[in-house]
Order: sequence, then structure tokens, then C-alpha cells
Amino acid sequence: MPEHNVTVENTLQTLLAEKKYTTIRDVLVTMNPADVAAVFSNVDKEKLPLLFRLLPKEQAAQSFVEMESEEQEALIRGISDSELRQVMDELYVDDAVDIVEEMPANVVQRILAQSDPEMRKEINEILQYPENSAGSVMTTEYVKLSPGMTVGDAILRIRRTGVDKETIYTCYVLDNRLLVGTVSVKSLLLAPNDLMTVDSIMEANPITVTTHTDQEEVARMMSKYNLLAIPVVDGDNRMVGIVTFDDAMDVMEDEATEDIEIMAGMTPSDKTYLKSSPFDLFKHRIPWLALLMVSATFTGLIISNFEHKLEALVALTAFIPMLMDTGGNSGSQSSVTVIRALSLNELEFRDLPKVIWKEIRAAVLCGVVLSVLCFAKIILVDKMILHTEGVDVMVALVVCLTMAVTVLCAKVVGCTLPMLAKKMGFDPAVMASPFITTIVDALSLLVYFGFATALLHL
Amino acid sequence: MPEHNVTVENTLQTLLAEKKYTTIRDVLVTMNPADVAAVFSNVDKEKLPLLFRLLPKEQAAQSFVEMESEEQEALIRGISDSELRQVMDELYVDDAVDIVEEMPANVVQRILAQSDPEMRKEINEILQYPENSAGSVMTTEYVKLSPGMTVGDAILRIRRTGVDKETIYTCYVLDNRLLVGTVSVKSLLLAPNDLMTVDSIMEANPITVTTHTDQEEVARMMSKYNLLAIPVVDGDNRMVGIVTFDDAMDVMEDEATEDIEIMAGMTPSDKTYLKSSPFDLFKHRIPWLALLMVSATFTGLIISNFEHKLEALVALTAFIPMLMDTGGNSGSQSSVTVIRALSLNELEFRDLPKVIWKEIRAAVLCGVVLSVLCFAKIILVDKMILHTEGVDVMVALVVCLTMAVTVLCAKVVGCTLPMLAKKMGFDPAVMASPFITTIVDALSLLVYFGFATALLHL
Repeated sequence: MPEHNVTVENTLQTLLAEKKYTTIRDVLVTMNPADVAAVFSNVDKEKLPLLFRLLPKEQAAQSFVEMESEEQEALIRGISDSELRQVMDELYVDDAVDIVEEMPANVVQRILAQSDPEMRKEINEILQYPENSAGSVMTTEYVKLSPGMTVGDAILRIRRTGVDKETIYTCYVLDNRLLVGTVSVKSLLLAPNDLMTVDSIMEANPITVTTHTDQEEVARMMSKYNLLAIPVVDGDNRMVGIVTFDDAMDVMEDEATEDIEIMAGMTPSDKTYLKSSPFDLFKHRIPWLALLMVSATFTGLIISNFEHKLEALVALTAFIPMLMDTGGNSGSQSSVTVIRALSLNELEFRDLPKVIWKEIRAAVLCGVVLSVLCFAKIILVDKMILHTEGVDVMVALVVCLTMAVTVLCAKVVGCTLPMLAKKMGFDPAVMASPFITTIVDALSLLVYFGFATALLHL
Repeated sequence: MPEHNVTVENTLQTLLAEKKYTTIRDVLVTMNPADVAAVFSNVDKEKLPLLFRLLPKEQAAQSFVEMESEEQEALIRGISDSELRQVMDELYVDDAVDIVEEMPANVVQRILAQSDPEMRKEINEILQYPENSAGSVMTTEYVKLSPGMTVGDAILRIRRTGVDKETIYTCYVLDNRLLVGTVSVKSLLLAPNDLMTVDSIMEANPITVTTHTDQEEVARMMSKYNLLAIPVVDGDNRMVGIVTFDDAMDVMEDEATEDIEIMAGMTPSDKTYLKSSPFDLFKHRIPWLALLMVSATFTGLIISNFEHKLEALVALTAFIPMLMDTGGNSGSQSSVTVIRALSLNELEFRDLPKVIWKEIRAAVLCGVVLSVLCFAKIILVDKMILHTEGVDVMVALVVCLTMAVTVLCAKVVGCTLPMLAKKMGFDPAVMASPFITTIVDALSLLVYFGFATALLHL
């Protein structure tokens, strides 16, 4: 779809230059909020309020929600109090909270001043919950029913109160604020007769999360149980809000991005790539680069220690990069597979022996194939074709034995560290390629010089 | 939740050994389909039909959908034709297709024989679409309305036909099989009066995908536009099915896993970690390991070529791992960031110059900090504390200059290759750590020996 936006965008830029506001309005009203937001992100900040005023009230608010925080801030600063109040009236509480979280204090004050008292209270409540908890992503607007209501009354209640609710499709049956069941609009509409009571058709024992459940776990449960919305309860099983599927989808996307960033040795960032400045990139990348560089000191020390052996047979040096890379790649394969399985809840710590045993067998298979291939390559290419000085069958043997042992160590280290990290309460994603590579580098050199000493009598 | 299942599971195992089937039944009926499936995956395959028969018809079918294909196959082989027919009657078409796709031919024949003719026809139609296309994940069961219907009639139609539909919450307004709009149950229920026509409250110009749209793009659009379901149309805008949010969530999870696997140098796998045999792991890992090992020949060649220089100053060897690792890490950071941005549609090929310029500036920042740090480390640790032979200020300078230049090259290569790969129609995820590392290794060695030759007069 980006290509599609581009064209509309260029058209709008031209229309804007020509001040054809009626035409612009006619174009904008045909567009989806997410697309309006995309167009607005490429417009001069001063022109935003002008364009924004062209939109009908509801579309304006919906598009506002979809914008990046930079444009939101520019807009809030550019519109009047009464315009801001209109936007706030249309917003769902969870969206309002998302916006408030990104704004500087003076803008937040203006937003709260223009929200109605109930909204203000709810925004403040949600802001109390820890970041990334179910409480912080939930909305407090949902349909409440009582167990004794008839189906007909329930439908009437939905029709009367539904307009402000983020979803009406799952309704929550409360008894004294305690959640006793959920009922879908589908089962209400398809109920055999309107005089049945809600508790006779509701799902008792609904799946819930608490306000402190991690948002990643919330999204995973919604995906596992195919839920449109999941109820959030407090410590006493009193219902406080719901998380809807659209927020769960965003969470899944964000969490996958975060895992991928951590696995590549970066601290996770909230900004999209194009919105990140070079300094942002630098800030998120330098800590791991520096740490890993310094820890490569050990690899250097190992080589320094065996320097006299390398002097005796410089040909050995040429195989160091291949051994280190293959070890690093083998280790990252295992660690990344295990990290992903952990993050999808497919593995638990008690599976560790099973995982290690599986990796050992896979490593033996990989190690044998790679060693044979490597032996053939050294004899054919290095010895027979290139006649590299000092390369003979014994050197090939040392390299291949190192290869096999390194692959084995790498795979065991690679699968074990993420599981240990999770057990100790760290993010297992930290134990991915860069970290594993540094450890495996040192291991492979030790093994290499060990075999070289023993077999080549250096 | 896994801990929770474990307990129930152990209890059920005990009950099963004691043949307390009534109790087992009472426990199972309180459980959610996904949890029943989890329990079943840990039960002896021969006992599956027995347990399955304890479940009420609807729960049985819903649990069946959630099972892994191994258990599904064992079950189908263990139950009678009439039991299989009952399950098929309860399934949605898209779930039936998912099951059929995983089964061997003789099981597929039995499934099709026990499906009603309409279901059979729809299964066969969906099976025609390419793997991972919208057509292959859609369901053909949705609510159809006509533009001229009144709101009251529309609600009646939903109540009459809704029971077999996967979602009733978004209804599709068709005019001669052409999709002219969508209308939500929310807007039907909240419509000011029941005599309004559907076309007066529907959303015209709905967002659609075609049968051949990639499933990843489908999921991304649903997430972007917050859609519960997205209509799938054929080349002539005739409506053929819908994709629902629960399938989109599964697709998002699977696609993230696939990207992560490819980025770690593995061919993607459909099986969960614990279900994969060591040979499965081997099969998915060996191609890249072997390819990357062989391509490390070039790094070896570079070292061999400069062997006489290394002989003259063996101290240089000790810095090779650090330079290669830092280069590799820098390159993977950029490549992984760009790959993720590409896969979230945040970047396009025309952004390449912008991306390169941003990476160059980030690389200069990283390069300067790392070089200074590295210089300090070499002088303090290697020279002043360890008195490593041959390490002096000039050597430190060569290492640091190499570091800065390598980081720069690595970041430019790292951001460029994924974008080029995508432009040429390859999966950009291939251009992640392992591949980038191999290229950057060679680059860093060339730079290193270049500086060494020039500055140390070797």
C-alpha cells in the first residue's frame, strides 16, 4: 500500500500549494484513519492544524490516534482548547493514555484539562500501572451485564450504552464488580429466545489476566485462545478493564521487534527506523559493541599465549577465522532457536536436559558433515591446488577435529545459556549471536591450540 | 499457564490409570479447547480416541482444531466414520483445510468422504490457492447482506444464518457477488432505527486483499487498520472469503519465527522445537553452516597471502578476532534493523540513500568511540600491564584505524545488502548476521593488512 499513499500524498501536496481546501477535504474523507495519519506525517508541521480542521469530528479523532507522537504534539499545540476537547471526547481511554504517555508535561496538562472528569480519572488510574503490564494497555470501557438479565434486556443495554465502548462483541457479566462470566453478542443474538437469562448462556470461568500480567503474555493468551478481548481483573478478581485484539496485535509486533533487536546486540528502541536519528542508532548500538569488543580481549590473550606455536607454524593462523565463524554460526543457530521457543512458551526450564541431548545429537550430525567437508576442502584446495606452505594431512586433521568439537561446544553453550538466563530472570534474547560468538571464539581457539599442541608436537 | 496444565495433566494421567472416566469427563468439560489439546499432546496415542469420546460434540471439534497434526492423525485413525463426520460438521472450512494440508493422502480421502458435499467443494477450492496466500488461509463462511435490506432484516438474517459463520461481527454487503461495503454488527445494533437500509450505514470502499496477497501482508493490513476480519476478493472484485483476526495473529507469530530463523542462518521449519528431531534440526542448519564454512576460504586466503607480514609481527594476529567480531557485530546490527523495518513495511528501496547516509553517521559515532576505547585498552592492558611483545603505539594505531574503517564498511554493507536483496526479489532476512559476518571478515582483514603494510612498513 505505500505506493498508493505516495500518489495521494503528492496530489495533496499540490492541492495544498494551490490552497484547494474543498478538494483536499473531499479526498481526505474517503481515506482510512491509518492512511490519513501516514499522509499527515509527511506534511509541514505548521500546516497540520489546517488540514486537521478539514476532517469530520470522528475521522479527525480516529486519525489523531494513528499518528506518530511528533505529529500529535504539533497538532495539540496548534489547535484550540475547544478543538482539543472535541478530540478527547471521541477517544477511547486506552488511546488517550498512549498519547499522554508520549507528551511533555505541559501538553499533558492541557490534554487532562480538556478531558471530562471521568476520562481524567480513568487516564490517571491506568497511568499508575507498570509499563508493559496488562493494566497499562487495557481500556476501562466495556459492556457490563448482570447475571439475571434476560437476553432481550442485554441486547437493549448494548444498544443503549455500546456507542462509547471499544468493543461490544464480548460483554462481561459482573456480580458486585466480580467477573462471573462472559457472553458474546453472537450468543445473545443467536439465543433461542429473548427471555433466557444471561447466566444461562454465558461462559462461566472466563480466561482472565491480572493488571500486572506482562503485555506479551496477554497477547500470547489472546492468540492461544482466539480471544477478541481479554478481561483484566485486580487481585480480588474484580474486573477493571479489557485488552482488545488490535492492541494485542501491536504488542506482538513490538515484542518480536524488541527480541530481534536484543538478539542482534542492540538495546531496544521505540522509534521506527526512519524516525531514529543517527545518534539514536548510535546510543542503542554502542553499549553492546563496546562490551563485546572489550571481552574479545580474552580471545586476544589466548592467541598471545600461543604465539610461539603460531610462529612455528604460521599456516595455522589462516584457519582461525573459519573455525571461529563456524563455531559462532552453530552456536547462534541453537541459541536463537531456543530463545524463540522460550518466548513462544514452547519450552520450560525443566526441558533443559531434553534440549541439551537433542542439540548434542544435532551437533554430532553437523560436526561430522562439516569436518568431512572441511578435510576435503583443505586437502583439495589448500594443499593440492594452492600448495599452501605447511598445510599437510596432520594440519587438516587438527582443523577438522577442532571443527567438530567446536560445533558441539557451541551448540551446547548456545542452547543452555538462554535457558539459564530465563531461569535467573534475565531476558533470554541477550544470549544470542553476539554474546555466544564471543564465548565460542575463546572456546574454539583453546580447542584449536590444544589439538595443535598434541598432534603437531609444537 | 504451563504450570497449570502440568497439574491437570498429572491428575488426568492418574485418573486414566484408575479408569475413572466420569471424573475425567467432568474435569475435561471445564477446560478450554487449547488446554484440552495441550493435555492430549502428552497422552499415549492409543488412549486418545477413548479420551476424545468423553468430550461433548462441540468441545471435541474445537479441541481437535487446536491439536498438533500428529495427534489429529492418530485420532482420525482411531475414531469411526460417523464420529469423524460429527467432527467435520462442527469445523469451519479454514480449519478443515489446515488439517487436510497436514495429513497423508489416505487420511485426506477419509476426511473428504466424511464431509458434506458443500464443505468438500470449499475445501478443494481453498486447497487450489498457493501456500501462504490469503486464499489459502481464508474461510468461505461469512455473513452476506444486500444493500437494500433494512437494518431489522439484516439483524434477522444474522440471527438465522449466523450459527455456522466464523464471525458475524463484520457483515459483507454484496451486489451480484461484488463487494460494495462492510457493516459491523455494532453499527447495525446501534443504528437509530430499524428501517434504515444497510447501504446507508455501511462503510463503502472497504479495505480488501486478493486471493493471492501474501498472508504476511494480510496480517499487517489487519493490524494497521485494526480489522477483525478482512474480505478476500478475486481478480474481478468478487468476494470469495474472509481472513479473521485469530488467523492473522497466528500468521504474525509464524512469520516472525521464520524471519528470526532465517536471520540466524537456518532454513525455516514448521515444527515446534520439542517436536523436531535432531535430524530435523540438522537438516535445517547444515546448508548455511556448510556454505558459510566454505566461503570462509576467502578469509583464509587473505591471511595466507599476508602470512609473511604476520610472521614479521606475530602480535598482529592477536587482534584479528576482536576486529572480525566487532565488524561482524556492527554489520549485523545494521542489517537486522533494516530487515525488520523492511518486513514491517517501514522502508522502501527508494529510501536507500537516506538509510546509507544515516548509517554512515551512526558508524562514525560508533567508530570513534570504539577506536578510542580500543586504543586505551591496547596501551593500558596489552602494553603497560601485560607487556605483550611487539605491541606499541603504532600497532595500536593500526588496530584502531582498522576498527573505525571496518565499522563504517560493516554498517554500509549491513544496511545495503538487505535492501538490494528485497529489490531483487529475495528474502532480505537472508542478509543477516551469518552472511554479513563472512563478508565483513574478509573486508576487515584486507583493511587491517593494508594499514599494517602502510604504517608499520612490513
